[in-house]
Parts: sequence; structure tokens; C-alpha cells
Amino acid sequence: MALKRSPLAPRRFPSMPAVTGVTLATAACGIKYKGRTDLCMIAFEPGSTVAGVLTRSKTASAPIEWCRAQLPRGRLRAIVVNSGNANAFTGKAGTASVDRIVAATAKRLGCRRGEVLVASTGVIGESLPDGLVVGELAKLTSGLKPDAWKAAAEAIMTTDTFPKGASRLSEIDGKPVTLCGISKGSGMIAPDMATMLAFVTTDAKLPAPVLQALLKRGADQSFNSITVDGDTSTSDTLLLAASGKAKHPRITSAGDRRLERFRADLESLLRDLAQQVVRDGEGAGKFVTITVSGAASRVAARRIGLAIGNSPLVKTAIAGEDANWGRIVMAVGKSGERADRDRLAIRIGGVAVAAAGEVVPGYDEAPVAAHMKGADIEIEVDIGVGRGKATVWTCDLTHGYISINADYRS
Amino acid sequence: MALKRSPLAPRRFPSMPAVTGVTLATAACGIKYKGRTDLCMIAFEPGSTVAGVLTRSKTASAPIEWCRAQLPRGRLRAIVVNSGNANAFTGKAGTASVDRIVAATAKRLGCRRGEVLVASTGVIGESLPDGLVVGELAKLTSGLKPDAWKAAAEAIMTTDTFPKGASRLSEIDGKPVTLCGISKGSGMIAPDMATMLAFVTTDAKLPAPVLQALLKRGADQSFNSITVDGDTSTSDTLLLAASGKAKHPRITSAGDRRLERFRADLESLLRDLAQQVVRDGEGAGKFVTITVSGAASRVAARRIGLAIGNSPLVKTAIAGEDANWGRIVMAVGKSGERADRDRLAIRIGGVAVAAAGEVVPGYDEAPVAAHMKGADIEIEVDIGVGRGKATVWTCDLTHGYISINADYRS
Repeated sequence: MALKRSPLAPRRFPSMPAVTGVTLATAACGIKYKGRTDLCMIAFEPGSTVAGVLTRSKTASAPIEWCRAQLPRGRLRAIVVNSGNANAFTGKAGTASVDRIVAATAKRLGCRRGEVLVASTGVIGESLPDGLVVGELAKLTSGLKPDAWKAAAEAIMTTDTFPKGASRLSEIDGKPVTLCGISKGSGMIAPDMATMLAFVTTDAKLPAPVLQALLKRGADQSFNSITVDGDTSTSDTLLLAASGKAKHPRITSAGDRRLERFRADLESLLRDLAQQVVRDGEGAGKFVTITVSGAASRVAARRIGLAIGNSPLVKTAIAGEDANWGRIVMAVGKSGERADRDRLAIRIGGVAVAAAGEVVPGYDEAPVAAHMKGADIEIEVDIGVGRGKATVWTCDLTHGYISINADYRS
Repeated sequence: MALKRSPLAPRRFPSMPAVTGVTLATAACGIKYKGRTDLCMIAFEPGSTVAGVLTRSKTASAPIEWCRAQLPRGRLRAIVVNSGNANAFTGKAGTASVDRIVAATAKRLGCRRGEVLVASTGVIGESLPDGLVVGELAKLTSGLKPDAWKAAAEAIMTTDTFPKGASRLSEIDGKPVTLCGISKGSGMIAPDMATMLAFVTTDAKLPAPVLQALLKRGADQSFNSITVDGDTSTSDTLLLAASGKAKHPRITSAGDRRLERFRADLESLLRDLAQQVVRDGEGAGKFVTITVSGAASRVAARRIGLAIGNSPLVKTAIAGEDANWGRIVMAVGKSGERADRDRLAIRIGGVAVAAAGEVVPGYDEAPVAAHMKGADIEIEVDIGVGRGKATVWTCDLTHGYISINADYRS
């Protein structure tokens, strides 16, 4: 099924620089797709470190189980990613496939098996033809290039309608540091077609526990703050790898104040990659920013934001360009978080709609209705019970989503 | 917007008997709808008892707050229900509207205000024109009839495409007892158009705490086990009222073994009413029964069932007649409940699809594909970690749902 490029897509793939110590290659090994690449290797020079945030699914895929076991050591030489087959719910055969790909890659790079991480996205419940992957490893390792970001972003796509990438030029203690990342995903997140994957690389020189702390916080404010349909993939993977080639002094704590700018740039890049996933939401016609303030805590604010962003009734109202604030009240109420109907305030497109438990006196729907016709929708909700704040991003729920997921026979 | 009768609707409204001590009347007071009834009174003779299960929403409506305050006393003379306006998010004006309707009803019936319960369903955020309701009270009380069930079920409809009712002839200690109930709802559950309301009456002679215990358990296995879109109304109300006119001996405990048959009949009736709500699910084309076994507990089984039943990806796959068991695996994984990928077993339409973490050897999709074309879909999931069981009912997610909720401008 050829999908039309999302109307919310950026105009073009960004220009992205090389990251010292990081190289990339892609190949077409023919797992499922014809006439396109479906395999990607990101290679790292010796001494690189890695951190990861993986799906919490209790039915996780074989590649997730491998990554979960290796990440605590925090060493990395290569990430091998295939699209077309998720290697999920494939039993012992799935584990054996991972073992063969990892062993062959480690042998070719002359590294330990634990320094090779893998990710797979595509259909589930079908054995991964790992021989096809292994057969391309020679070509991949000989074709590694420093700036093949767009090709890599394209190779990992499934139902994505555009490749997703972002970079930031940052610094640590006055020394330049580069960040480059790619992502894929368009549902949030279907196991057989739309798993969320993201790989972020940097030349910073940071121990794995520092990377892990930075990534965990960044993920909460980006990939864990987006939703397309509230579903969770068996394969969701976010990795942050650092080659250590930058010239800044040694840093051993995530709380080190010299990391301030790097942390901000990493978080900005993660938000960028996550928002691109929402902008490719299946059938999406509108990009929605939901800002919650006045909640009991930051966690409560995010949960309320996600309750609004996951509500089919809110999302269909947005698709219908209907400023249906009653559905927002409903979603706040069902979040389970502390709320007080009579303190709730709602703004849409910057216009006060409801306050103190009632529609605002003399509410004029005209400017709000005009805002709803745009492609970028802003919803602000103040809960009025505390100081917790969070922002969540989602898209509308349209006939396009149904067409992609119901009319399409896998 | 005139909605086509759901293809899953029963052929006709059931024939329902009178319940001694219970009378009903309806009226058209013109709150919102033209040319139809929108007001219903269910009246009870003195000495009647009542129990209730109300929405857990933190942004509940004014009628919910009133019921919540009165239910602990457990006495009832009348339920007054209007459709067309939910009296939700209406601030102090909403509370004042409830007060006026309750006071006028109590005066007319010569009872205490706390013996009058109210429910409202319809648009939210608009003041309820309670004068219209009060203006019809004389006509309502003079028109009370013992078996006007269908008229009552019609008066409380909003986007429902058919009136919902059910009755059971039961017994307590060998003496005949009657149960009659009506319900409405078609999303699960939108505050401005599809709140779930259900009112069950009986001539049994049971103290309010006994009713409450029976209702709580019955609700868990019926209205709390259905889902259309996972949304929760600000107004969901389920009441069970008993006139005490039946001739059985005094019963003071919900655990009394003489209640066994009554309890079973009540639960069967509640399931019937709840399933009718699912059969009227907005845009529903298929009725889906999800049976979960082998979970860590009954609560875990229900949560897993609801995770499957709420998953947009599972529901769109069913709409597309696609036996996409991978999405069921995904939904089990995201439920948060204990599960073991390698013990999971899935049957669709009675046919084993997956077992022990893999697709079953020699899986033949043909009989499963044939089952998916029917209107009644059966999904069985065995988690393999315990003995918890539960059944959940839902419907598919179709273009019709989007049309009703997005294309319709409120």
C-alpha cells in the first residue's frame, strides 16, 4: 500500500552533519519490501558508550530482550536495524535469529557480541529470515559512510510517509559537540506496522550511566509525551550512543552543570524526532499541542495530557474542527488524577473558553472556530490544584486512520 | 442528525411486565429535541430502597453530585431523567437547577427531597432550562403507568439508535420477583451525546446495603466490562431500586443463599442491558466478546480484556475483518498486567491461532477469516500465569464512529 506523504510532514529532510566516530550504511535485503532498502547499520568506533529506553510491553520482541540484557554494560560498536519483520512473538526461533545476526556482525567488526544491538520493525509472528540480513553484512561494513543519515532514516521506515531526522550543534564546557538522530513510527504504536524506533548519536565523551540519566529525562519529555492511538509496540526502542571523540573534559555525573547546554540540545532534538512521529500519525490532518498546568505534579500533568491526547472523542472532535471543550473536561475527569471541576480552565488557540467550572461569560466561538480550521491546534488546560506542568503532542483521529488500519489487510 | 438503526440491534423492544410498586411516565418538554419525548419519571411507592454505581469522573455533573450525596440513605420515591442537556460543567447554576427540579418533585409527591434522584444526558456546558422540566411535573405525576417501559427507554435516548430494555422473572425463597430495566448509551461514553444511564427496578424487598452489594458485583461484570471507545462520561449512572412489594421473607445480607437465583438473574439482566449499549456502539458493525483466562486475578483478567477491547488497532483490524492476532499480543503486553509472552495462547472463533509464544504449527487462516466476516466475533486469550477469568464486550472501530464524532458539529 503506497501511502500519501503526510500533510503535516516537514518540507524536506534536514541537512545533517557527520558525527566523528559514527558511520552508517544501508542495504536492500528483501525481507518483505520490493525496490527499497530495509537494512541499516550504524557503526561506532571502539570506546563508544550507549544508553537506551525500551518498550515496557510484557510481550516484547526478541531484539528488545537482547538489548535489555546488553544495555547495562553500556558498550556499543554497532546497531543493526531491519524493517519488514519485527521478529516479535516468534519464540525460540526469534532468539536464534538475533543470535546469528549479532554473532556475524561481531565477527565482522572484531568486537564482542554484547557490543552489537539490534532492532526490528514490521510484521509480527513470522520468522525473521536472518540469513538475508547476514548475507548483506559484508556489503554493509564495507559501505559505511559518515553522513548517510537520510538513507538510514529511509531504510528503517514501515508505514512512515517520510524519513525523520534531526541534528543539533551543541557544546560541552565550550568544546563543540554534535548530535544527530533518526526516528521512525507513525502509529503509537502498532506491532506489525508502526513500531517507534529512534537512534541518537553524538561525539560527546560520556559514560553510559550519564547517557542513561540524560536519555531517561529526555524521553519523558519527548517520546513518552506523544501519542497517536495510545497503543504500545512490542518493539519500541530509543538508543543514545556516544563515540567519545569530542575534546571536552571528562564528565562523570549527569548533574554536572557543564552538561546544561548539551542536555537542553539533546532534549530539543528528542522532541523534534518525537514530534515528527506525531506529524506522520496514521491519517493525521492536524498536529495538536496540549499544555497542562496547575496539576498536582509533573507526572499528574503528563497523565492528564495523555488522557486528553488519547481520547477518541477529543481527537475526532479536532478532526471535525469542532472546539468541543466538553470532551476535554470529560478526558480530564477520566484521567484519574486530582482535579476540581470548579477550578478547571481551558484555552483553545489562546482564547479562554471555560473557567471556574463554567463556560466563560460571553464566550465568542468565532476566533476559536477559526483556530480549529488550522493545521496546528493549541489546547491549554489549567487544573487549578497545584504547580505540575507538562506538554503532550498528538494528532487528530480521522477516516484516514481507519482506512490505514481497517481497510488494509496485512 | 438522524442515525440509522444499528445493524447489531435486537429485532424489537422486549415485552416487559409491570413491577409492583413502580410506575412510569414520559413527556416532551423541548429542552433540545423537536418532535420527541425528552423527560421520564420513574416513581416508587413509599418504603422503596435504592443503590447506585456512579461515574468515577473527577469532573462529574451536578446530577451525579446530587445522587452521590443522597444514595447513602438508600430511600427513593422518584427518578427524574432528562435527555438533551447533561447539566455538566454548569457551575453553581447547574446545582441550582437540580435543587429546583428535586424540590418541585418532592413537593408534588409529598416526599423528602433526598428521596428524589435525577439524571441528565445531552450537551454539556449549557445551563439546563429546568423550568421546562418543572413545568411538566404535574403532567408526569398524573400520567404514571405501570408498564411504560418502551416509552421511558425512548425518552432517555440521545444518539442511541434503538431503545434498550430487559426484564427477568426471578424468585427469592420460592416467591416470584420481577426485574425490569432500561438503559441508554452508545459511545462509552461521551459527555455531550452518549452518556451511559441505566435504571433497574424490582419488587424485591431488600435493604439498600444488600442492593448496593448486589449491584456493585453485577456492575463489574456488565457495565464495567463493556467499552466502545474507552472514554468515561461525566454523567454515567446505574441505579437499582426495589419497591419491596414482593412476598418473600426478610433478607438482610447480600451473601444470603436464598438470593442466589435473584443475583444470577440480576447479573444476567445487567449484562443484557450493557451488551445492548455495545450493540449500539457508535458506528459498530461487529459485536465482540473477549474472554480472558489464566490471568493473575479476576481484576487482571478484566484489565487485559479492556486493554484488548480499547485498542484502536485491535478494533480497526476487526472492522477490516482481519484476524490480526499480533495486535492482540500487543494489547496484552501494554495492559501492564502480568503476562508471559511464551505462555500466551489465542483463539479466534474457537480456532487456535497462537500458543506458547508462537503462531500454531500449520495455522490455517481460512476458518478464522470466515469467522471474521460474521457480526459476532469471539476472541479467547489465555495468559497462562494464573486462574483469573473475565469476559469483556466491545464493538469494532469503523468509519461510522469517525463520521458520528468528527463530521457531526455539535
